[in-house]
Parts: sequence; structure tokens; C-alpha cells
Amino acid sequence: MTIPAPYLLYLGHSDDEVGLKTSRGLATFRREDCVGEWRHDDCPFSFGLPRMDAGEARLAGARTLVLGIANPGGRFPEWMIDDALVAIAAGMNLACGLHQRLRDEPRLVAAAEAFGVELFDVRDAPGDLPVGNGKRRAGNRLLTVGTDCSVGKMYATLCLRDALRARGVAADFRATGQTGILIAGRGVPLDAVVADFIAGAIETLAPARDDDGWDLIEGQGSLFHPSFAGVSTGLLHGAQPAALLLCHDPVRPHMRGLPHYPMPGLAECLDANLRVARLTSPDVRGVGVALNTAKLDEAAARRLCAETQDAMGLPCTDPWRFGADAIAEELLRCFAPSTPAMTASA
Amino acid sequence: MTIPAPYLLYLGHSDDEVGLKTSRGLATFRREDCVGEWRHDDCPFSFGLPRMDAGEARLAGARTLVLGIANPGGRFPEWMIDDALVAIAAGMNLACGLHQRLRDEPRLVAAAEAFGVELFDVRDAPGDLPVGNGKRRAGNRLLTVGTDCSVGKMYATLCLRDALRARGVAADFRATGQTGILIAGRGVPLDAVVADFIAGAIETLAPARDDDGWDLIEGQGSLFHPSFAGVSTGLLHGAQPAALLLCHDPVRPHMRGLPHYPMPGLAECLDANLRVARLTSPDVRGVGVALNTAKLDEAAARRLCAETQDAMGLPCTDPWRFGADAIAEELLRCFAPSTPAMTASA
Repeated sequence: MTIPAPYLLYLGHSDDEVGLKTSRGLATFRREDCVGEWRHDDCPFSFGLPRMDAGEARLAGARTLVLGIANPGGRFPEWMIDDALVAIAAGMNLACGLHQRLRDEPRLVAAAEAFGVELFDVRDAPGDLPVGNGKRRAGNRLLTVGTDCSVGKMYATLCLRDALRARGVAADFRATGQTGILIAGRGVPLDAVVADFIAGAIETLAPARDDDGWDLIEGQGSLFHPSFAGVSTGLLHGAQPAALLLCHDPVRPHMRGLPHYPMPGLAECLDANLRVARLTSPDVRGVGVALNTAKLDEAAARRLCAETQDAMGLPCTDPWRFGADAIAEELLRCFAPSTPAMTASA
Repeated sequence: MTIPAPYLLYLGHSDDEVGLKTSRGLATFRREDCVGEWRHDDCPFSFGLPRMDAGEARLAGARTLVLGIANPGGRFPEWMIDDALVAIAAGMNLACGLHQRLRDEPRLVAAAEAFGVELFDVRDAPGDLPVGNGKRRAGNRLLTVGTDCSVGKMYATLCLRDALRARGVAADFRATGQTGILIAGRGVPLDAVVADFIAGAIETLAPARDDDGWDLIEGQGSLFHPSFAGVSTGLLHGAQPAALLLCHDPVRPHMRGLPHYPMPGLAECLDANLRVARLTSPDVRGVGVALNTAKLDEAAARRLCAETQDAMGLPCTDPWRFGADAIAEELLRCFAPSTPAMTASA
């Protein structure tokens, strides 16, 4: 699957900032491939890209409209279909990561055929996944886990990758969600996998590796989210992680979409994840806490990271804002590559 | 979906007794609809039904061959396809609950069309399932959970249904697997549901009820099975169970299909299930232990039930062998219907 760049990012009428995470991820991690953003007057958000509609973007060279809006349940708003038809008529391909597929919307299929463009459903899962087997496999793997959905697991994973690479350590990002897959160019859309194959999908995504490098696996959902904890559980078991990185949004008032569910405490959440992970990785350990401090000023953010670090006894940072160095250092400290035994001097 | 009865049960060349659970379930709970069993000389098992091939069964009135073989991963053995083609040629419909679909095997599709019979894929999940919302809903729900896959959860659920009905209590079996769905005539094949919708599927299967009766939900997998714990987790959260019934096979040497994974202890397993279930059902409690004692003689079975009852502090029985009365009594004792307040005598 190769989605033609450059991209026009679609924000439409969205008023759900968290729901824009796919577009934001591309604007952040593949900004050089984004020519602009298409948002209507009632959309209060911007990624700082030139604002343009489909026709203007086509003239600016954009080849694909990325419908980067994530809703719980993943259904198309009607206004998105209307705008997508305009983009098709302007000669652009469409890429979308929702559960609802572009190919299942007859108006889009007919228009794409008429105008000779392609529809890319990023959330299509591979059809030949195995059932997980839980067998111990070689290699270093870290999994990001979260107190909730959409708390920064993908950002933390990518920032940690960059911090490890800056230290000369081989590190690969293993994408499990629509945004990560669009950024990485490959991956498994885990929440679209049939339930029996969740763990097996991750065993396939992050197979045994025989170097001292790291597979950094993008986490999904939360053990404390009553809609999605099954996905998170299978991900923990399939990943066989040596290390967990706990991710959290400190200003989230309650579990995403569920005002009747409070957020879990950090220690409680890490403990629960370690307990589940031990089934397939008995020596798993936590190596850090990643906070998404976007809503805090810098002084408050630094104070919260320091307090959290003291409370949890693990390095804590906002990896996007302050870098992931402290977590990379802790990871390499805990899992030092095996070195030849030193001989005692005579 | 109405699958024409009566049935011919297919055992084929299977030498995996546990894998025959779908055929066995029908032979047990809908025996009056089974005209015979089709097994080859190398199949060491029998359900005690008349042995016949497809042609003989057709003459005896059978209308559907039930391919009731469950393999991990759910792929067709080649010999099953050969025999299925013979059954089609004899004029029988096919029903199958594997992940691999009858409709995806071109030889079967072509033959079914040529001979004018139907193919029933029991494991097709509904396409319009919602994401779970975790909102507290009214009604009494019990979920069977297990130390492993295939330890008797469906049998325990059906036996408990009968024990409650014998006491005049409304009780409905909510099927979540292929065998249960064939027995009940409806249900959700949970392990075929897309991962994001596991909990939502169960909220739909067992919606709010406003009487004092019980929804008895068939459990799947195990929190301790590294291949399938994600399914079990979503099921616990979607079920919002007031009560859990723990099911176990005391002679199982290790987790099904995974010699490298030991079975969990009963207390450890119930604790883990209660902990996960509390997210959506804070007052959940265990109400009993169901042992599958088929491989023990009666004295040993009764002794083990008594010892387990003492150790766990909960009623323990083999519900199929000795009845589910003790568990039904415990359930009704713990969750007595609300009665009008008594007035103090003067």
C-alpha cells in the first residue's frame, strides 16, 4: 500500500480536538509531505499549515486527501462525504482510517471510478493473521501503555525511537493504529483485527530480533477503558514486552467518551499492566512515565514531571516537549547489551 | 438464520476430542434433532448416535451436515472439504462455525450452487455492532469464566439455566460461541467480532432487563490464555456481571495448545476475573465453581468437588454430572429479589 504524497489534511467541521489525532500526527511527523489543511469556519483547530480547499490543494500539488478524523466507532459524518466527493472531483485520492470503509460508501466508489482516483482504507487488517502462541521470542521490545485512549502513546513511542537512534541504538517503530501506519508506511490496525487474532497480530508485527536493538510497539486503548480493554490485553500478551512506558494526560477529566468512568491512578495503572503482561513476559518492568503536558505552561509541566518522577520512582517527561532522553537512558541502563566477561587482572 | 434440521454431525478423521465440542454440544443439548454421526475408521470418538455417511443420512432425513470441528485458528482440513462435497452432492446443506468461511471455499460454493443447497457460516458476526459504553444497566447477569478454553463454560451455563428454570426463575442462555449459537438459535460469535467491538457486542447480546430473571452469558477463552485473553477481557467488561461462575477442567495438563503455559490456580483465576470485572460491575462476586469431571470416576469426582468447595468457600459441582442445583441456590441466596419491607409488629 503506497499512498501518493503530498497530502491535504482534512479537518472539516470537527470540533473534537482529540479526534483530529490522525491529521495532527501527519502534520507533526511527516510535515514535509503535507501541503495544507482543509478546515471550515466552524472548526476551531489548525495545524499551522496553509489553509486551502480541495481545488486549491490540487493546484498546489496535493495528490491525496487524508480524512484524518477518528470518532469512537468510526462512522463517517455526512459532511465528510460531501467534501470527499468534492476532493475526488478535483482529482485527489482519498485515504481514511475509520472502521467504516471508503469502499463501502457507494457514492465515493462511483465518484472515484468516474474521476480515476483511488480510495485507501488504512484500517484494513491483513487476512492471514495467526492465532498468538505466546512462545518466548528473542529481542528487546517496549510497549507503550496508557491510562486512557489518546493520551500520547504514539508520540511517546516515536520520540523514544528518535532518542534511541540519537544514541546509536537500532530502534524501530511498530505501528498499531491508523495514524501510526500512515506515518510508518506499514503496521497492523489492531482495533480492526478479529478478536481471536489480536495477540497473534502483534507477534507478527514485532517478530523475534537477534540484535541489541529495540522494537518500540505503539500501544492502544487502556486496561481501564471499558470499551477497549480487550484490545489492550491482547496487545500486552502479543507484545511480550521487556519494558513498559506508561503514558498519561494529566488534564483528562475522565475516561475518553465516558463521563461515568474516572481516570485510574498512575501506580494502579502501571501495576495492572505489569500484572497482565507477566503472563507472556514474566520479567517485564516499567521504565518511565510519559505525560502529555500540552495544556500546561512550561513551569507547571516541569513541576508535574518532577513530582510524578518522585512518586513513581521512574523517569518522567513529556517526550514531545522535553525529549525522551531520560527514558532512553533508563531503558539502556536496565537492559544493557551483554558484554564479554571481564577477565580479572593478575 | 434458520438452519434446517435434522442434522448429521461430522467427526471425520478428527483425533482431537476437545476440538469436537460443537458436534458434541448438539448431540447433547439438541439430540432430538441429530439423526446420526459421520466418522471415519481412524476417528476414535463417538457420540452414541447411529453411524452413517452423507448418503445414508440423507435417506434417513438429515437436511444439514454440521461441520462441528473447532481448531485453533479455524482452518479447514482438506479431508473435511472432500467429505463436505460428498454431502452437498447428496443434497445436504452445510453449517460451519470455523473462522474460515464456507463461502470463501470456491469448490463448496460452486457445488452448493450446482446442487441447490445452502452454506451457513455460523461465525459471521453482525455488521452493526456498537462500541461498548460501560453504562450501568438494569438486570441480573451471570458470566461463566474459565481457567482455560474448552473447560465446560457452555455446559455449565446451560445446566444452570435449567436448574434456575426448574425453580421457576426466568433464565436465558446468551450464546457467544459457534456451538452455543447452534444450540440457542441466536447469539454473537464473539471471537469473530472485530476487536474494537467486543464489549459492545455483549452489551447488545445481553441488554438491560427489568424482571428478576437472569441472563446467563456463555464465557469464552481465559484471562490466562495468551492467545485469547483479550476476548475474555472484553467479555467481562461488556457483560457487567453481577455474578461469576468459575469453570475448570481438573485434568487439563497445561493451557490448551500451549505446553509452555501451566494452568492457573482456581483462587488466582477467580481473583483476576473479579478484578477485571469490577471496572464495569463494582459489586461482582463469585457464586460457584463448575468442574468438568468427565475423566474422573464418580467417587473421585465427588471428592474433588467437596475439596474444591472447602478450599474456595463457594459451592462446587460438576453441573452436567451432578446438576447445578447448589450453584442455582447460591445465586438466588446472594441475589434475592427485592421484597416489600416488613413492618415491625407492635
